[in-house]
Amino acid sequence: MKKVEHIGIAVNNLEVSIPLFEKLLNTTCYKTETVASEGVNTAFFQTGETKIELLEATIAESPITKFLEKKGEGMHHIAFDVEDIEAEMKRLQSEGFVLLNEKPKQGADNKLVCFLHPKGTNGVLIELCQERSSL
Amino acid sequence: MKKVEHIGIAVNNLEVSIPLFEKLLNTTCYKTETVASEGVNTAFFQTGETKIELLEATIAESPITKFLEKKGEGMHHIAFDVEDIEAEMKRLQSEGFVLLNEKPKQGADNKLVCFLHPKGTNGVLIELCQERSSL
Repeated sequence: MKKVEHIGIAVNNLEVSIPLFEKLLNTTCYKTETVASEGVNTAFFQTGETKIELLEATIAESPITKFLEKKGEGMHHIAFDVEDIEAEMKRLQSEGFVLLNEKPKQGADNKLVCFLHPKGTNGVLIELCQERSSL
Repeated sequence: MKKVEHIGIAVNNLEVSIPLFEKLLNTTCYKTETVASEGVNTAFFQTGETKIELLEATIAESPITKFLEKKGEGMHHIAFDVEDIEAEMKRLQSEGFVLLNEKPKQGADNKLVCFLHPKGTNGVLIELCQERSSL
């Protein structure tokens, strides 16, 4: 795990939350992106080497819809930057962690990603991510 | 906000969670510290410029006890490194954010800290922290 690449935060409405986080972080949202496969709109802020990623659901089947219904707005996941996602997935599996996807999948921000089951990580949803350009 | 200084994670038992996070992050816990005033034991891991801080309650009145009872184990707060905590507290107050302590207080890891009310930050508990040595 090289660094915390981003922290994902589930929000009800990006139109409300983007200006709120711009005030909070004292920086401008530098990108928004829709990830249709996950049913989310995302908005990114840079702070040091880590991004804050706001997540808004676009469909009822989105994992963010379910999260918001169950827990309300708040911290959703921590994403760690890894050099070789397949090697890291193998390492974690051999340590007993449970992967939520068996193969790396396309995430926001031009990343290959894999999630770990939060039951094995003290309730924290962990994402591994690797820059596609580094493949 | 200079960077994400640490991410706080509430856990039931450090004895279980320290080895778990050592495996997950593939790095050794480099410090444990008790913060008696907050009723917590803490354990720190470095990943890039950001720390992961595990938090275990030591007393029934600890904010971590209440968090665990209500939400269970999981992400508890995001702490941002600031250069001048009093100036940042003033800036955020003038933007309408609600501070949970009016004066900076002593936190773990030789920091002065201030928390923001999560009702004003989309359910995310935000901590500001400043190295005491930079005062």
